[in-house]
Amino acid sequence: MATHKLLLLPGDGIGPEIMTEVKKVIGWIEKRGVAAFTIEEDLVGGCAYDAHGRAISEGAMKKALAADAVIFGAVGGPKWDGVPYDVRPEAGLLRLRKDLGLFANLRPAICYPALADSSSLKREVVEGLDILIVRELTGGVYFGEPKEIVTLENGEKRAVDTQLYTTSEIERIARVAFDLARTRGNKVASAEKRNVMKSGVLWNQVVTRIGREDYPDVALEHVLADNCAMQLVRWPKQFDVVVCDNLFGDILSDVAAMLTGSLGMLPSASLGAPDPATGQRRALYEPVHGTAPDIAGKGVANPIAMIASFGMALRYSFGLGGEADLLDRAIAAVLDEGLRTPDIYTEGTVKVGTVAMGDAILAAL
Amino acid sequence: MATHKLLLLPGDGIGPEIMTEVKKVIGWIEKRGVAAFTIEEDLVGGCAYDAHGRAISEGAMKKALAADAVIFGAVGGPKWDGVPYDVRPEAGLLRLRKDLGLFANLRPAICYPALADSSSLKREVVEGLDILIVRELTGGVYFGEPKEIVTLENGEKRAVDTQLYTTSEIERIARVAFDLARTRGNKVASAEKRNVMKSGVLWNQVVTRIGREDYPDVALEHVLADNCAMQLVRWPKQFDVVVCDNLFGDILSDVAAMLTGSLGMLPSASLGAPDPATGQRRALYEPVHGTAPDIAGKGVANPIAMIASFGMALRYSFGLGGEADLLDRAIAAVLDEGLRTPDIYTEGTVKVGTVAMGDAILAAL
Ligand SMILES: CC(C)[C@H](C(=O)O)[C@@H](O)C(=O)O
Ligand SMILES: CC(C)[C@H](C(=O)O)[C@@H](O)C(=O)O
Repeated sequence: MATHKLLLLPGDGIGPEIMTEVKKVIGWIEKRGVAAFTIEEDLVGGCAYDAHGRAISEGAMKKALAADAVIFGAVGGPKWDGVPYDVRPEAGLLRLRKDLGLFANLRPAICYPALADSSSLKREVVEGLDILIVRELTGGVYFGEPKEIVTLENGEKRAVDTQLYTTSEIERIARVAFDLARTRGNKVASAEKRNVMKSGVLWNQVVTRIGREDYPDVALEHVLADNCAMQLVRWPKQFDVVVCDNLFGDILSDVAAMLTGSLGMLPSASLGAPDPATGQRRALYEPVHGTAPDIAGKGVANPIAMIASFGMALRYSFGLGGEADLLDRAIAAVLDEGLRTPDIYTEGTVKVGTVAMGDAILAAL
Repeated sequence: MATHKLLLLPGDGIGPEIMTEVKKVIGWIEKRGVAAFTIEEDLVGGCAYDAHGRAISEGAMKKALAADAVIFGAVGGPKWDGVPYDVRPEAGLLRLRKDLGLFANLRPAICYPALADSSSLKREVVEGLDILIVRELTGGVYFGEPKEIVTLENGEKRAVDTQLYTTSEIERIARVAFDLARTRGNKVASAEKRNVMKSGVLWNQVVTRIGREDYPDVALEHVLADNCAMQLVRWPKQFDVVVCDNLFGDILSDVAAMLTGSLGMLPSASLGAPDPATGQRRALYEPVHGTAPDIAGKGVANPIAMIASFGMALRYSFGLGGEADLLDRAIAAVLDEGLRTPDIYTEGTVKVGTVAMGDAILAAL
C-alpha cells in the first residue's frame, strides 16, 4: 500500500473550517486500506503574513516541494488589503504555483441536477452541464517581467505588466487539454484574442499545429476570448474542454463556475509536468471559491468544493479513481437527500452547517 | 440649425445592410428640421483590405478626423483570417480608436422588457436591467509596446504584449465613469486585478483618489475583474456603472451584453476628450455585435443595435437628447408590437427582416 505525503494549507477565512471536513475523508481512505498518508499542515496567505511577515514561509515551501499533493484552502481578505504588494496573501498562492511548476489548472464546471435551480440561468441552459476549463497557470501576465510601477518625470506614475508566452509553454498546456478531451467529449475550444494580442496569434498557431499533428481525432475550434465569455453565458453546453491562458482562464473559469449556480461546489486541480523517472506530477488542489470573510468562523461554509478538490487529488495524484467516483457519488447523494449549506439553500430543502455537511458525506460513503 | 459632418463606415458582413436602416433615421432627423447632416461614406475592415490592401485608407482616416461623428458598422470575418496581422480588418477599428483619441467606450446593457425571455438567464435576474460599462479604449494591452513575436535562439517563438497605464489615462476614464454615474444610479464599480497586476494596483489607487477628491457623493466599490464577471452572471442588477481597462472591458461588456439576451440590440459610443475651445468631442458609434458573416446579405440581420448607436450619437454628439429618447421609445414600441428579427424571434411574435424592422421603427417615429 502506497504512502503519500500530503501538505494541508487551509489558509484564511473559511479555509480552516472546510479543511477540517477534508480530514474526515482522508480518514475514510485510510480505513479502506487503499492508501496511507503522512500529513503536514502549515500557514499560507494572510495568516502566514501575520505570523512571519510573508505570504508563505520557506519552511512551508520546502514541505510543498516535498509533498505528493498540496491541499489548499483559500487566501486573502479585507484584513490584508493594505499590506505591501510582495507579501499580500495571494503572493503565497502564486509562488506555490510558480515554484511547483503547476502549469495546468483544471477547472471543471459541473451542474449538479439537484442544484440546477440555484443557477441564475434557466434550468435548460445549465442542467447537465459538464465542461472543463484548462487554464495555463504559470505564464502570461501573471509572471511576465517587467511588472512594475514607475514614477515619470512629470510626476505621473506608469504601471506595466507583461504578457509573455513561448511556444513550449503553449504546447504543453495544449497537450493537457487535448489529452483530457480524449477522455471526455473529444472537443477542444481554444480561446485567445489573436485579433489584438501577439500572444493570441502565437497561441492560436501553436494550438492549431499540435492539434493537427498529434490530435487529429479531437475536434478543435478557435474562439475569441470575449466571444467565449458570451457563448458561456448563452449556451455553455456547446463546449467540452476550453483551453486558454492564465488571465483569460481566470475570468472564463469564474464565469463557467457561476453558471452552475454553485460556486461552493467546484474543485480545481493544478498540475505540473510528469517526472521523467517516476511519472509523478506535482499537484495542488483547491476550491474555486475564495475565503468568504463574511461567513468565516460561523460554521456555515460549504465544504463540498474543498472535499471535491481532495477527490481530484485521489484521481489525479493517487491513482484512486474508483474512490474519487465514490466520493462524487456520495456528494450527489447528500444533495439528493436535500441537505444544503446556506449558500445553496432553497425552499423545501434542509439547511445544515459545515460540520453536518461533512458528516453526511462521510455517512454516504 | 446646426449642420453636422457624419462619416458612415458600414464595414463588412451585415454592416452595409444595417447601415442602410440608419439612413432612414438620419432622414427623419433632417425632416424634423432639428439638424442637417453632410454625409460621407467609406470602407473599413476587410472590404478596405480588399480594395487597398489596408484595413483603412488614409483618405478614410482624414474623413474620420474631420467628422463630427463616425457611424461604424462592424469589421472582420473568416474571409480575412489569413491576412497579415498589421492589415487585418480589426486594425482599421483600432486605428480609428487610437488616432481619434476615443478613450471612453460606453456600453449600456439594457434589457428590454419585451425581450427578457430571450435571455439565457432567468427573467427575474435580468428584467429591468440597466447597467453601463465604461471601458478605457486607447490604452492597456491593446496598444502597449513591445507587442511582438520574436524567434529565440533555440528556435522557439516568444510572444509579448504589454499592459501599460499611466495616472492620467486612468484619471480621465474614471472621471467619465463618475460623471455618468451622477446622471444615473450614482454608483461606480471599478474592476481590476490588483492582486496580480501592477496596472490593477495603480488603477485602484487612482480611481480611489479621484472618487474621494472630486466625487465623494458617488458610491465607489472596487471589485476584482474575475469576481466582477461572476457577479454579472449572478446578480447583474447590483451594478450601475462599471469602469475598467481595455481588455477587461472587452470581456465584461460582452458578458453584460449577453445577459440581456439581445446582442443585436446593444449600441456603444466611443468618445474622445472635449475640445478645450468648442467643447466638442470626437466620437464613434458602433453596435456591440459583430459582422455575423453567416447571415450577411440575407436581409435578416437585426438593425436595432446599429440604429440605437445612431441614437447615442444624437445624444452625445448632437445635443439631441429629446430625439434620442423618441428613437428609444420607437424601438421599444416596435418590440411591444411583437416584431422580431430572427435573432430575437420567439414563438408568438412576428418574424421580420432587416428592412421591415427599419421601416417599422421609422413608422413608430
Ligand atoms: C487569488 C488570485 C491570485 C487567483 C488568480 O487570479 O489566479 C484566483 O482568482 C484564482 O483564480 O485562483
Ligand atoms: C473587433 C475587436 C478588435 C474589438 C475589441 O477587441 O476591442 C471588439 O471585440 C470590441 O469589443 O469592440
